[in-house]
Amino acid sequence: MRVVVIGGGAAGASAASRARRLAPDAEVTLIEASSMITHAPCGIPYALSRLVPSHRVLRTYSPERFASERRIEVLTNAVAEDVEVEGHTVLVRRGGSVTRIRWDALILATGAKPLVPRIEGLESVKPLTFRHPEEVPDAASRIERSKRVAVIGGGYIGVELTEALVDLGKDVLLFEMMDRLLPGPFDPEISRILEEAVRGNGVEVHLSEPVRALSPRGERIVVQTDIGSYEVDDVVMGIGVRPNTDLALKAGVRLGTTGAVETDELMSTNVDGVFAAGDLVEKHHLVLKRKVWIPLAPAANKEGQVAGANAVMRGSLRMRGIVGTAVTRFKDLYLARTGLGQEEASRNGFFVESTTIVARTKAGYFPGGVEVTVKMIAERGSGRLLGLQVSGRDPVVAAYADIAAVAIERGMSTEDFFFSDIGYMPATAPVWHPLIVAARTLSKGRF
Amino acid sequence: MRVVVIGGGAAGASAASRARRLAPDAEVTLIEASSMITHAPCGIPYALSRLVPSHRVLRTYSPERFASERRIEVLTNAVAEDVEVEGHTVLVRRGGSVTRIRWDALILATGAKPLVPRIEGLESVKPLTFRHPEEVPDAASRIERSKRVAVIGGGYIGVELTEALVDLGKDVLLFEMMDRLLPGPFDPEISRILEEAVRGNGVEVHLSEPVRALSPRGERIVVQTDIGSYEVDDVVMGIGVRPNTDLALKAGVRLGTTGAVETDELMSTNVDGVFAAGDLVEKHHLVLKRKVWIPLAPAANKEGQVAGANAVMRGSLRMRGIVGTAVTRFKDLYLARTGLGQEEASRNGFFVESTTIVARTKAGYFPGGVEVTVKMIAERGSGRLLGLQVSGRDPVVAAYADIAAVAIERGMSTEDFFFSDIGYMPATAPVWHPLIVAARTLSKGRF
Repeated sequence: MRVVVIGGGAAGASAASRARRLAPDAEVTLIEASSMITHAPCGIPYALSRLVPSHRVLRTYSPERFASERRIEVLTNAVAEDVEVEGHTVLVRRGGSVTRIRWDALILATGAKPLVPRIEGLESVKPLTFRHPEEVPDAASRIERSKRVAVIGGGYIGVELTEALVDLGKDVLLFEMMDRLLPGPFDPEISRILEEAVRGNGVEVHLSEPVRALSPRGERIVVQTDIGSYEVDDVVMGIGVRPNTDLALKAGVRLGTTGAVETDELMSTNVDGVFAAGDLVEKHHLVLKRKVWIPLAPAANKEGQVAGANAVMRGSLRMRGIVGTAVTRFKDLYLARTGLGQEEASRNGFFVESTTIVARTKAGYFPGGVEVTVKMIAERGSGRLLGLQVSGRDPVVAAYADIAAVAIERGMSTEDFFFSDIGYMPATAPVWHPLIVAARTLSKGRF
Repeated sequence: MRVVVIGGGAAGASAASRARRLAPDAEVTLIEASSMITHAPCGIPYALSRLVPSHRVLRTYSPERFASERRIEVLTNAVAEDVEVEGHTVLVRRGGSVTRIRWDALILATGAKPLVPRIEGLESVKPLTFRHPEEVPDAASRIERSKRVAVIGGGYIGVELTEALVDLGKDVLLFEMMDRLLPGPFDPEISRILEEAVRGNGVEVHLSEPVRALSPRGERIVVQTDIGSYEVDDVVMGIGVRPNTDLALKAGVRLGTTGAVETDELMSTNVDGVFAAGDLVEKHHLVLKRKVWIPLAPAANKEGQVAGANAVMRGSLRMRGIVGTAVTRFKDLYLARTGLGQEEASRNGFFVESTTIVARTKAGYFPGGVEVTVKMIAERGSGRLLGLQVSGRDPVVAAYADIAAVAIERGMSTEDFFFSDIGYMPATAPVWHPLIVAARTLSKGRF
């Protein structure tokens, strides 16, 4: 039995490990295009700003250690160029040579790649893009030469790269085509708090201002929007990613309506023996009860686990869905969300009600507490908890979203949630926990 | 309609507020024996150590503000001495005079009082006990005169008072009759970490060493245990509380097998028109499916809410149960737990398995992460998640217990829990969250 995994990121490494663990006699090969495996692209902004000492630490294992500890053949700097489904082979280019590797089970974990937006002049200006930790050193020395930098895109990537650039002492202009930062995941009540923090750090935030063109002007670059034009030293793309389905398509793997690879709960594709896991696949949303494409590492890891298990022991593990939990930060301001946003819920046919409260992370009298803003969204009538968004200057807000994520997964109502046995001591929460207060407020006096 | 609430702590104040809100025309009277209402006994150790500036801040409302903002008659320094059920009156002593107050609904929220252990010489030595913030100033000036202090009891109260005494520069001897600190709520794996921290702060920890007698020796006190005798300057009782059911018994209210007041989901007692809420009542444990007595503020608040609602609008709100979530700390070490401990589960007939893992609070490469120890307990066979215990030098561990509390309430298996959509970013969690790692480890390779 030979299992071949294409892609050594979160999903691929999990898949290879799981296959190895469940099938000690199988041959397991992990093929990775870069020189790193188990790499953590989420850490890129912090390597760029030198909050973490080097891009080299943005990985869990060296290829050598992973290979020897797990008895997995690891091929780095190896590009899987084609898949031959009938013959059960994959064509791999490594250095100058091309080899065919046979597989009994193939797991595609090719991840995502940066979106290329429709902006004129991209080819001549070549903005900085980030997808892999390996890109950090070159980017860092390029950015060192710049003082005034434009970031295009106010989503997670754009906001986190803005933090890095602020930390590096740059003057940053942040452009977002929608009317707020993080417009996909967050409603205006929370986005506004982020916007204030970003502006408070000297960033010029340009909302509702899509970038139309980039053009060189001497050593500098002109950013042209619908509203104005801005001369900067460099441009950073932070507009997100799309599923990297190139190889999947070559294998005849079917994509879903989201444009990402369609799989079942076993992470099987439509092609016999071919599995897929991670950012290239679509995910089942447990509240929307349909497929979505939200590429985040925790789901990628678990999908890898499931794909690896089923590659060697079919039917042994099933992927559940997601509820869209996500976390980000800008400097000391943390933002987390789970479930559906209010706009997202309405757009998807839910009749919703919501509340936004301000509370504290510790008992009022206890030192060190900070203010948190909690928005809770529920279905009108049933009272079913649909979503939670929270921000505050303490990483604990991420855990608030986690608490709500479990509640949402299990279909709890806000009344159920109000009665949850959430703990208390003055140094860790107020006796009325912010989440409990939000649930109570949302009940409009019913409890 | 007249609602009378006895006891102005968490439960009583919640009950009065809720009754007022739902019945704007009712008369609502809150009777409190001390001068404070909405007081927070959990803050006592921190007022004693002056981490919080004064015992006076250990309350949410002044009686005057509560009375005027909520239109509730508040009688402080008023002791409810007897209840006359037939005549629907309560006898209240205030200053020199006694009055009878009529009620249509009576809510008992008389809380808990310190346990009096069987230790010889208690009457002559009179150790310090703490139950009410008002006791702090006298205790603080008494403790100022002491250098070497014995704390009796290694439960929550004893451990939190030990922190305060250490902060005040005292030499502390901590006596616990069982073989570990926090022996009720925590299993040895977590208690041991606490013990190390307590000893590391110079505290002499005496385990398996019940105190038998206290006796004065000149200005000092001799603590006599089964093993030795110790001369100290003062003794602090930290052995916990028991339900304050005196008034309930006078009203003919039935106690349950736990010795606390028995109520139904509406917080009604067996006596028509009489409700009870807070530390004097027993709670329904959702995992054990029986009554327990765990007196903690969050449940007290919610029970008050439920009692107040049903006092004026019968059947309008039902108390769910608890799963035993609790949090404490010693200095910078936080400990939290929910559900059943391993010993507790076994003792209650569960066939259990558990795992204890060490993980980090942030991505390995991210600065500021700390080590956390997570013990997860599940039912063998079904895989049902039964309990979680966690410790670490970050208050976020409290939220880990909250996440698990919701999962346990909803009957999740460890496999369900593994697939929970818990969030990630490098500054708030590793990509494999410690809770997810614990669930995976507990599966013993199934996932």
